[in-house]
Amino acid sequence: MKPYAQMTAAEREKELSALRERYLDFQARGLSLNMARGKPGKAQLDLVSDMLTVLTDPADCMDGGVDVRNYGELTGIPSAKRLFADLLGTAPEEILVGGNASLNLMYDLIAKAYTHGLLHSQRPWSQEETVKFLCPSPGYDRHFKISASFGMEMITIPMTAEGPDMDLVEEAVKDPAVKGMWCVPKYSNPEGIVYSDAVVDRIAALRPAAPDFALMWDNAYCVHEIYGEFVPFRDILTLCREQGNADMVYEFASTSKITFPGAGVAVMAASRENQKYYESLLTYQTISYDKVNQLRHVRYLKDKAGVLALMQRHAAILAPKFTAVLDALRAEIAPLQIATWTEPKGGYFVSVNAMPGTAKRVVALMKEAGVILTGAGATYPYGKDPADSNIRIAPSLPPVEELQQAMEVFCLCLRIAALEKLSAEG
Amino acid sequence: MKPYAQMTAAEREKELSALRERYLDFQARGLSLNMARGKPGKAQLDLVSDMLTVLTDPADCMDGGVDVRNYGELTGIPSAKRLFADLLGTAPEEILVGGNASLNLMYDLIAKAYTHGLLHSQRPWSQEETVKFLCPSPGYDRHFKISASFGMEMITIPMTAEGPDMDLVEEAVKDPAVKGMWCVPKYSNPEGIVYSDAVVDRIAALRPAAPDFALMWDNAYCVHEIYGEFVPFRDILTLCREQGNADMVYEFASTSKITFPGAGVAVMAASRENQKYYESLLTYQTISYDKVNQLRHVRYLKDKAGVLALMQRHAAILAPKFTAVLDALRAEIAPLQIATWTEPKGGYFVSVNAMPGTAKRVVALMKEAGVILTGAGATYPYGKDPADSNIRIAPSLPPVEELQQAMEVFCLCLRIAALEKLSAEG
Repeated sequence: MKPYAQMTAAEREKELSALRERYLDFQARGLSLNMARGKPGKAQLDLVSDMLTVLTDPADCMDGGVDVRNYGELTGIPSAKRLFADLLGTAPEEILVGGNASLNLMYDLIAKAYTHGLLHSQRPWSQEETVKFLCPSPGYDRHFKISASFGMEMITIPMTAEGPDMDLVEEAVKDPAVKGMWCVPKYSNPEGIVYSDAVVDRIAALRPAAPDFALMWDNAYCVHEIYGEFVPFRDILTLCREQGNADMVYEFASTSKITFPGAGVAVMAASRENQKYYESLLTYQTISYDKVNQLRHVRYLKDKAGVLALMQRHAAILAPKFTAVLDALRAEIAPLQIATWTEPKGGYFVSVNAMPGTAKRVVALMKEAGVILTGAGATYPYGKDPADSNIRIAPSLPPVEELQQAMEVFCLCLRIAALEKLSAEG
Repeated sequence: MKPYAQMTAAEREKELSALRERYLDFQARGLSLNMARGKPGKAQLDLVSDMLTVLTDPADCMDGGVDVRNYGELTGIPSAKRLFADLLGTAPEEILVGGNASLNLMYDLIAKAYTHGLLHSQRPWSQEETVKFLCPSPGYDRHFKISASFGMEMITIPMTAEGPDMDLVEEAVKDPAVKGMWCVPKYSNPEGIVYSDAVVDRIAALRPAAPDFALMWDNAYCVHEIYGEFVPFRDILTLCREQGNADMVYEFASTSKITFPGAGVAVMAASRENQKYYESLLTYQTISYDKVNQLRHVRYLKDKAGVLALMQRHAAILAPKFTAVLDALRAEIAPLQIATWTEPKGGYFVSVNAMPGTAKRVVALMKEAGVILTGAGATYPYGKDPADSNIRIAPSLPPVEELQQAMEVFCLCLRIAALEKLSAEG
């Protein structure tokens, strides 16, 4: 195997023809796999079955003096606030505990910014001429889709190996129309990058022109190591407060990939002033989120140590899947020099940069072979990857054997698309 | 006892002085009761304890082919859609199953009207000069607070014994700025009025000038009889569709007062076209509501018959409480002709009309005697009851013995406030 770029046209043609035959074989197998989303596999869900029966009778449903079965406790039950404060390194008073899916809390915050404004807004964002948002990319498609849904102008900020390009961020926030930034600080989606201390410090010290700049700190993978022990992270609320930016940051996390993605508990951490303001709006929106499920989580997970121990059991299931992905790429693709990829230590994705101009083709080829990937471009604002290169691989759902098959096809598709491209370029 | 209005000034003074002494006695007892909200009592919560353990292992968590523990099924699990369609008389395709609290679904619909517009909106409501909403009153304070929170102009529509005054409603909807109406059609909050067929027919046949008029049909008490058997209701979606108004109505219901107020399941029923449009917005807001809890409800409640049987057990607990309230009013207040009240067959409230100009005073006196009632005026838009007369009694939470004490004080307060008023008027 030699790098494709060094092959002669004839060598490429021969290679392409052989690969197309193998591809036809795969198509004939009638695969049906989905690697589009970071969806835990069944074995992971089975880990936490005991949570289903952790509350069995009325006496179990008391959280101190609070009967969690009844109305009340708009911002979450006390014990759940303590648990999540412990996990995130914040104070319980800085925690709002919600229902399933932290995406819902993020969306609702943005929605309230539009309808009512945030704590320091001069007017609701719906009354602003333009609202711009910084989108470190590649990034999480659902963040960008929230922004798109509200008609924001999205500004792509390239990711570096240490996090968002801070020179560009610092420059961009001088524009008062720039109202916030999406961040996944630990094991970023999709690259698995952990923001360096220097980057986090610069973020906390930002001086945005917009008084209501919202740092959307999606700590989705805060305890989601794939290999090795828990890697501690610093409390962004404290860092921002120390820089005089106490009300700039909203941190999000959830148990979606700790317990059940379909029945988890989400949290928003923010300054006391932000929480007070948010509660003054939330009181019209709901009476409480599901408090029985909040208590179920507290009783089952117990404390930070309980969460971290469980995460090691998730890691034991996930590690071989990530290894299968990386082994295939190393063996099949590395020598050809047609793609690069990340080797994340946590999170849910492997980010592959295919030969520029081939990502869409690769995803289409995969689909025709029965494997669904996240759409090419999804990791960029407006769904448009300028280089048509980035592909997000989500290895968590399929069993290892299926994943190995899927990766065989994937490598084949990367190669076919690269050869087609090189041929077209002559 | 003779009607206060027929008493001489001297008789009134003597009476007032005696009542004030009794009031002081009550104050000395140090009562601490809350009758502000329609909050189920502990005995009601204990009815459904078996729901806590209805799902115990992974195999239990399959809803047909759907593993409810994992991501997906944005609009609810199939079996839950069937259950609620059965209860409401709609098709499963017309059902969205949410998380805890139907208030959240109502708020979110209004919020989306403001940020994105509804299916037939010409523009988002945030871009309208004025948004007006019809508020049949007395009504549910939380409805009015949603409207207030979004800055709507609320138009009070008086309630008749059959529902909202439809002559006024039909006139009001000719204004294109009138974008909707709040309705609690069965056992209205707080009066317990069941809209008559004639009223419901006229509502379904409305011809609003606004193309995106939203009939907010909060069927909160659809199966919540206090005495006797289930009283069937007609499907508002069908009635509206038959009148060419298929997309005008959004119906809401929840299990908050069927299973757990703190861990229920809420639903929104609407036309297929509305659901399709709503789902196109919801896809940015969340990944799914809590599906394990949806399945828990399905497995526990089973079907409409299961729900109705459970509601009879709730009724057996609630009926003596309503009887205690009404007995006290009949014995202590009726002869004095200083107040009127409803005698609801279902729902969660007794609506008392105190002597005009005395409601605030009564609520204040109650508070000073240790009993919290819903704030006077809360049942009207802007929290302002023009007659200062309506008081909402929520008898569900206290045990009967405590309720009897509370009603003793309440009758005393009604009398004191009426005598004070009559004296002031000379």
